[in-house]
Amino acid sequence: MANLSPLQKLRYEYQPKLPTVLKGDVKNITVELGSPTESIANQAEVKDLFKKTYGLPVAKFVEGTNENAGKVINVGVILSGGQAPGGHNVIAGIYDGVKNGNKDSKVFGFKGGPAGIMNGNLVEITPEFMDEYRNTGGFDMIGSGRDKLESTEQFEMAKATCEKNNITSVIIIGGDDSNTNGAVLAEYFAANNAGITVVGCPKTIDGDLKNEHIETSFGFDTACKTYSELIGNIQRDANSAKKYWHFIKLMGRSASHIGLECALQTQPNICIISEEIEAKAQTLDSVVDDIVDVVVKRSQNGDNFGVALIPEGLIEFIPEMNVLISELNNLLAIEAESFAKAVGFDEQVKWIISKTTKAASDVFASLPKGIQAQLLMDRDPHGNVQVSRIETEKLLIEMVDKKLNDLKAAGKFSGSFNGLNHFFGYEGRCAFPSNFDADYCYSLGYTAFLLMNQGLTGYISNVKNLDKPATEWVAGGVPLTMMMNMEQRHGHLKPVIKKALVELDGAPFKEFKANRDEWAVNTSYLFPGAIQYYGPSEVCDLTTRTLALEKK
Amino acid sequence: MANLSPLQKLRYEYQPKLPTVLKGDVKNITVELGSPTESIANQAEVKDLFKKTYGLPVAKFVEGTNENAGKVINVGVILSGGQAPGGHNVIAGIYDGVKNGNKDSKVFGFKGGPAGIMNGNLVEITPEFMDEYRNTGGFDMIGSGRDKLESTEQFEMAKATCEKNNITSVIIIGGDDSNTNGAVLAEYFAANNAGITVVGCPKTIDGDLKNEHIETSFGFDTACKTYSELIGNIQRDANSAKKYWHFIKLMGRSASHIGLECALQTQPNICIISEEIEAKAQTLDSVVDDIVDVVVKRSQNGDNFGVALIPEGLIEFIPEMNVLISELNNLLAIEAESFAKAVGFDEQVKWIISKTTKAASDVFASLPKGIQAQLLMDRDPHGNVQVSRIETEKLLIEMVDKKLNDLKAAGKFSGSFNGLNHFFGYEGRCAFPSNFDADYCYSLGYTAFLLMNQGLTGYISNVKNLDKPATEWVAGGVPLTMMMNMEQRHGHLKPVIKKALVELDGAPFKEFKANRDEWAVNTSYLFPGAIQYYGPSEVCDLTTRTLALEKK
Repeated sequence: MANLSPLQKLRYEYQPKLPTVLKGDVKNITVELGSPTESIANQAEVKDLFKKTYGLPVAKFVEGTNENAGKVINVGVILSGGQAPGGHNVIAGIYDGVKNGNKDSKVFGFKGGPAGIMNGNLVEITPEFMDEYRNTGGFDMIGSGRDKLESTEQFEMAKATCEKNNITSVIIIGGDDSNTNGAVLAEYFAANNAGITVVGCPKTIDGDLKNEHIETSFGFDTACKTYSELIGNIQRDANSAKKYWHFIKLMGRSASHIGLECALQTQPNICIISEEIEAKAQTLDSVVDDIVDVVVKRSQNGDNFGVALIPEGLIEFIPEMNVLISELNNLLAIEAESFAKAVGFDEQVKWIISKTTKAASDVFASLPKGIQAQLLMDRDPHGNVQVSRIETEKLLIEMVDKKLNDLKAAGKFSGSFNGLNHFFGYEGRCAFPSNFDADYCYSLGYTAFLLMNQGLTGYISNVKNLDKPATEWVAGGVPLTMMMNMEQRHGHLKPVIKKALVELDGAPFKEFKANRDEWAVNTSYLFPGAIQYYGPSEVCDLTTRTLALEKK
Repeated sequence: MANLSPLQKLRYEYQPKLPTVLKGDVKNITVELGSPTESIANQAEVKDLFKKTYGLPVAKFVEGTNENAGKVINVGVILSGGQAPGGHNVIAGIYDGVKNGNKDSKVFGFKGGPAGIMNGNLVEITPEFMDEYRNTGGFDMIGSGRDKLESTEQFEMAKATCEKNNITSVIIIGGDDSNTNGAVLAEYFAANNAGITVVGCPKTIDGDLKNEHIETSFGFDTACKTYSELIGNIQRDANSAKKYWHFIKLMGRSASHIGLECALQTQPNICIISEEIEAKAQTLDSVVDDIVDVVVKRSQNGDNFGVALIPEGLIEFIPEMNVLISELNNLLAIEAESFAKAVGFDEQVKWIISKTTKAASDVFASLPKGIQAQLLMDRDPHGNVQVSRIETEKLLIEMVDKKLNDLKAAGKFSGSFNGLNHFFGYEGRCAFPSNFDADYCYSLGYTAFLLMNQGLTGYISNVKNLDKPATEWVAGGVPLTMMMNMEQRHGHLKPVIKKALVELDGAPFKEFKANRDEWAVNTSYLFPGAIQYYGPSEVCDLTTRTLALEKK
């Protein structure tokens, strides 16, 4: 801990805020259990798959006598999937809770994600080790990983690791998939009387793990604030130089929550919402037309600059692009030998156009060369096109530029268009958690401990009332099966936690829709600036516009 | 001002700190003038070109009776060139100084940079207009521009605008070129008895306008802190996921000050310093080898991840790349018709290789396809290769990847390498100025007013002792001619302010050099986090490592 930035030193001293009920002695925190619950859909199928953990009651922590307070428990923690700010504070909340319960209880970290519990790669968390990571970003404390924990063999490996280390509770900090796997693991342990409980925590910057119980996933707040800082800075630059259009792609996988939240925080000229594109079954061409329309209108006011936000998953929400990509995947797998004979880029393009359906070849032919090259060359080990690596922001700039040149030639556009591209993702996943995420994560971790302390399994830690000050937050647990339905995955019907996409009749999208035409043509930029950890509460403790609007 | 972010509202209330001597009544601030000065080189030539403004004394403001205090002056301000955080605070310092001098004095902003003074496009700055921009980033208050103010005709246009609006002083806020032009304009006005004084202010995020008098240019602090925030976040991500090498290109034109400062703030595995590459006359191939060497060493420790910083101007500092680019520029200009006959990318590449010298064609052939395509297609209106748009970060990733594949085939590398690319520039140029830049800029502006108040011309506003608290800063002015020498520009010998590149025997580079081998192989990342405007002084008022080391 010798070599630290000044902010990091200072953040160690931050004491995360807890809901009032969690502040007292563990002896005085008890659980209140509700009525039996049902899954959100496919109740019979889900019930059949989760014989031991289906229908559990919702749990809420209240003041009262806790008979289990001093019980020794040994806990193992897994960080699963992509990084999100606040993961270390979840661990801190668990750690402090466990130690407040009984100093002899232990907390272990499984290293490198789910692989750690399978391979028995773990580390005991000491007070010094814990202190080094309080209120810091990243998952570097114990590392993360994307391995799936889903087969019986893997469950047995996990069980063996827990038994060997006398671990009685496992906490999985992850997104919808990881929590789905957590639910299956909880059921497996229960069905096999393993004596190991499993509790989840809702993590993802993408914001797509939320529902009527879970108000937001952790990390979304900090990541969106970091991206919005940068978007605001770029907007100010665009409005100063008045000569560039900045196209900014934002991480967030399939869902456009991040784009929407950033748009509400910064008021850019354009923000594409994938879910709306899909609902309207828009073509790539019409998406480009919509952008061109804004560029032309602004240009007529003398404003040859602007900012457009592009969600990472856009391509997959444009039906015709989906057709093209699946044809390419099939074609290049089946006719790989024939394709290999097409030498040079120009020949390869001809080959593709001759082999695909008209719909697909038309779209392919309309794409800029660089993107065609990406589709042909940048494939994963299974030969599939790597959709997430397609530079959508460049694709749109080139297509917009081409259309504007045509309009200019036809005398319908007299402005200028210079596009610059950006992609923000890794910049925000490991920021120091905002005060909101620091507090929320610590509370989630502390609540996860209380669930384990009560011997509950198959739950996700749940902290609600998040639009209020932390003292008024409500802590409890929701049965994982309650958030499940059956969905097709790789050709099989599986029980999964439903992923939350942007709802077009939800308050955040409606707010955006009501304002976007004005933002498009006028320059109404907001400049959120860097995340502040110190100073007045109205700057430091604010959470997202999405949450505020959804709770209104 | 209806629709503002919480931080923006709060920043309006920030009162920038001033050196103690500037805090009092303008009546009690007087100027102390030193001995006559000389230019740094070519004294006879510079003196001959600046008959009226050569040899002026250094000015320093001290307590004392100011006979000029209440004099009415009307000032016009120009923001010149690329944005830098704090420009609005320079204007605020000028404005408050001018109004403290005499309420009847006026401040005008020339709109859109130097074009504004030439075309008579200006706006009077009212108290409300000024207040809207205090402590904000960007140049959007009056806009900026890159027009050069250098011909007699342009000087006459500027003179006419000033006379028409009764403006008696012009302030140019800009980098080395803009201040050079300011010096010539000051001389022109003096030689023609125009009765208009000219004062400059040292602006540029690139950090290359500094010398024995000017400790740093404004904006460098905020921009580097913003980039370092992002680099730190990405380092944390790299160290959490442990599977990516992030190659981050940083703005900064020719000089590598930004890269060096960010490296000192974040301790990445690799930071290339262009000035060192040039001094060693390294080839592109050997630059790639150096990177490969670090990747292999880290991989041997099981660390298949890392972060490398790449300065924007690198390509121009690699001698053989410079040869290639100038050959391409000549060739494509002279033999454009013949080139046009080469149809398709593969034919074009063959054509280039057949037409260039062996040295150039060897380098060209070694480049990845995407970069070859950029060199051939992405040319400016004069047909020249757009060096600044070459994606050096991608170029290096592809070349490193290729070498590692060869090493792997030879059994000399058993790790993995996945490169991700980033470019940071626009993200930091318009951030809310750090407290340091907010204070420094306000002081520079206030000092610029005092220079004008004393009737001085051909000076640059100068605030020194910047490693000390603001109260101990020393305010004054340095004659612009004092920082000049003669250099070849577009085939002519011209008087210019010398650009400061990274000095390989300077303290910042030495500090980097002493540590970089350790940072390369170990994971010694620092995480600076977001710029803090509130909270303890050790976090909020710190300036750059570069300045601290240079002043040590």
